[in-house]
Amino acid sequence: MNVQDYMLSVGQAARAASRAIARADTNQKNRALHAIADALLRDSAKLIAANALDLAAARQNGLEPALVDRLAVSAATVESMAEGLRQIAALPDPVGEMDDFTYRPSGIQLGKMRVPLGVVGIIYESRPNVTADAAGLCLKSGNAAILRGGSEAFHSNQAIAACVHEGLAAAGLPAGVVQILETTDRAAVTALVTMPDYVDVIVPRGGKGLIERISREARVPVIKHLHGNCHVYIDERADLDKAFAIALNAKTHRYGTCNTMESLLVHQAVAGAILPRLAEAYWDKGVELRGCERTRDILGNKVVAATAEDWETEYLAPILAVKVVDSLDEAIEHINEHGSHHTDAIVTEDYSRSRRFLREVDSASVMVNASTRFADGFEYGLGAEIGISTDKIHARGPVGLEGLTSQKWVVLGDGQIRQ
Amino acid sequence: MNVQDYMLSVGQAARAASRAIARADTNQKNRALHAIADALLRDSAKLIAANALDLAAARQNGLEPALVDRLAVSAATVESMAEGLRQIAALPDPVGEMDDFTYRPSGIQLGKMRVPLGVVGIIYESRPNVTADAAGLCLKSGNAAILRGGSEAFHSNQAIAACVHEGLAAAGLPAGVVQILETTDRAAVTALVTMPDYVDVIVPRGGKGLIERISREARVPVIKHLHGNCHVYIDERADLDKAFAIALNAKTHRYGTCNTMESLLVHQAVAGAILPRLAEAYWDKGVELRGCERTRDILGNKVVAATAEDWETEYLAPILAVKVVDSLDEAIEHINEHGSHHTDAIVTEDYSRSRRFLREVDSASVMVNASTRFADGFEYGLGAEIGISTDKIHARGPVGLEGLTSQKWVVLGDGQIRQ
Repeated sequence: MNVQDYMLSVGQAARAASRAIARADTNQKNRALHAIADALLRDSAKLIAANALDLAAARQNGLEPALVDRLAVSAATVESMAEGLRQIAALPDPVGEMDDFTYRPSGIQLGKMRVPLGVVGIIYESRPNVTADAAGLCLKSGNAAILRGGSEAFHSNQAIAACVHEGLAAAGLPAGVVQILETTDRAAVTALVTMPDYVDVIVPRGGKGLIERISREARVPVIKHLHGNCHVYIDERADLDKAFAIALNAKTHRYGTCNTMESLLVHQAVAGAILPRLAEAYWDKGVELRGCERTRDILGNKVVAATAEDWETEYLAPILAVKVVDSLDEAIEHINEHGSHHTDAIVTEDYSRSRRFLREVDSASVMVNASTRFADGFEYGLGAEIGISTDKIHARGPVGLEGLTSQKWVVLGDGQIRQ
Repeated sequence: MNVQDYMLSVGQAARAASRAIARADTNQKNRALHAIADALLRDSAKLIAANALDLAAARQNGLEPALVDRLAVSAATVESMAEGLRQIAALPDPVGEMDDFTYRPSGIQLGKMRVPLGVVGIIYESRPNVTADAAGLCLKSGNAAILRGGSEAFHSNQAIAACVHEGLAAAGLPAGVVQILETTDRAAVTALVTMPDYVDVIVPRGGKGLIERISREARVPVIKHLHGNCHVYIDERADLDKAFAIALNAKTHRYGTCNTMESLLVHQAVAGAILPRLAEAYWDKGVELRGCERTRDILGNKVVAATAEDWETEYLAPILAVKVVDSLDEAIEHINEHGSHHTDAIVTEDYSRSRRFLREVDSASVMVNASTRFADGFEYGLGAEIGISTDKIHARGPVGLEGLTSQKWVVLGDGQIRQ
């Protein structure tokens, strides 16, 4: 079968299965989730063996060590996949939630019902545990999923697929509910993102290159997580101990996550007091500082001069851009202009400034006196997340079960007609 | 200036203005809406004179009489535009609404704030009153708008634009808040839908051809209203008097609207009882019936034999496709397969069947014992609507002020850091 025909058959199976999973009750979906978890644990050795094939190929192909690391599946990885599925089973089921019923003047009673999106296509790179996560989130939210993992994880993903299908069958659900593509042909991705009749939304997870390419090609709506260029702004009226703790945590808690601070903005009135103390702590941890001229005036030449590009960069590394600003206005403007609308925080004790920051910073998460590292599905109480959206429509920020649903209108009448 | 440069300058002005309008308080936005309404009423004669130029050109170019009608602006049209703006002013302001604040285990307090989308591009055809409506809805919801009306309404739209800008200035808002394109070059549309840096969402309003073209070209999310192939299903357990009233109203209240029924499905157990009565009433009103074989067995050869195409067609005319079905399952499957996910209704007194229809029919509006004609922003209490979405993500069904906003996450902390 050629790729076009294969993808058409996948799309048709997904559309048909989406009706079955949309109707499934919560118990049936949870039974499937637990059955998949059981199968994964039982097949742990098989999964690790399949993964070994991928790892050997990756090393042979000279994949970067960091990527090889992300690809590796251990017994602990399998346990955490299974645990993730059990946590999804424990989350409340959003499907069918009804809200906001009120009578309209015509006598109809109008409300909303939360419903699955239908068929969700997920395109991701290297990490095989995404396969289990994504399958679980789509299943619980009543969607059919078409998963396209990286070619470097092909054997691992097929082994996980076998467990997923066993779990679906055990719960009496069709195999079309979760399909993991059996091809690594690039044309399959193009087909997937251009089948609006069979796919309702695409979630790409991966590097900026992948996401930009998908967004360009897609003829289906995309929920995308482009990048996280997050800021902390230390205001003139900040509590400097809180500022120190937050700015340090937001940068150094983990370097490779999208909610890590990449640029620090400091009001000029407190720059002299807070920057030397912070710089010491950053340098202790091996963080390179790149600063504006005023930052370098305070901290000296150990700070590299920042270029225009630094303000735009998601380092994902122990590097931090630092800028001294004259005002809250300048900070807000800088963030809206150079940030990625992901997560930004102000440190201040000033009521009015905190309100302005919350309202005017155009980001998916805006914070007062808290570390940007909190922008995360688990910290927000969503459970697992399918990604963190930097889009503005549908869902912003961490996307959990609710982000994989939408609301339809329900009208309950007694024979009403339009006059 | 070439079209590319012109559109870039429009996009930049819109992005800058979007920050100002997002910050504007409700009073300021309402002042602008009333000032625009005042200017429209004062300039009524000017608008009608500008419209006369468009009408003369339309007639000269042999535009269809129905389209010439839609293009015409009378004193009553101007009054209804002004009244529409005053109604938008009277609606609650969704911007800044905060909800769902709860403490998380880490001690952060997490909630959501409703915020504008940013810059909304609206592309529409002939009817000049859309210009005032769309400007008003975007303004009230805190968005900057870029409006591209049909070339056949160019003079009318420019005259309305002058009033809009006068109203914005009177309220101290920048002109960039509502820009009405001063070119009819097709390349301007292509530029508008491919500027993700300056435009956050596109709303196309018009025929299927326009919307399909925009969706194909767009590199920006699109909220689209593709078409309305709406169904009424008369169940075996329907109250036949309600069924008669609803089926008649849903088809004949107005023929040209998207929430008009285009296909009638009737359970075989009641087809013999209800169809002859309904057919009489339809024929009295000049509605042509196209039926399946069983329908023709009951109603005779006056009913044209329906082809496969009839089940897919939005007639927007006094034509109705009629099908006798064996079961609720067949009805639901027919609607999900052939409908357009717009609005579908069941007539039944059966509790369990009503629940299944509501849950399983995958449409933006699902109704029990009410006419599909209720699917409308005014009937739903949203006030004016920017369109009726047949998409599944973001907003389904009538899109009012809330559909032009999204929610961001707000984190209120006291110095919390991730452990």
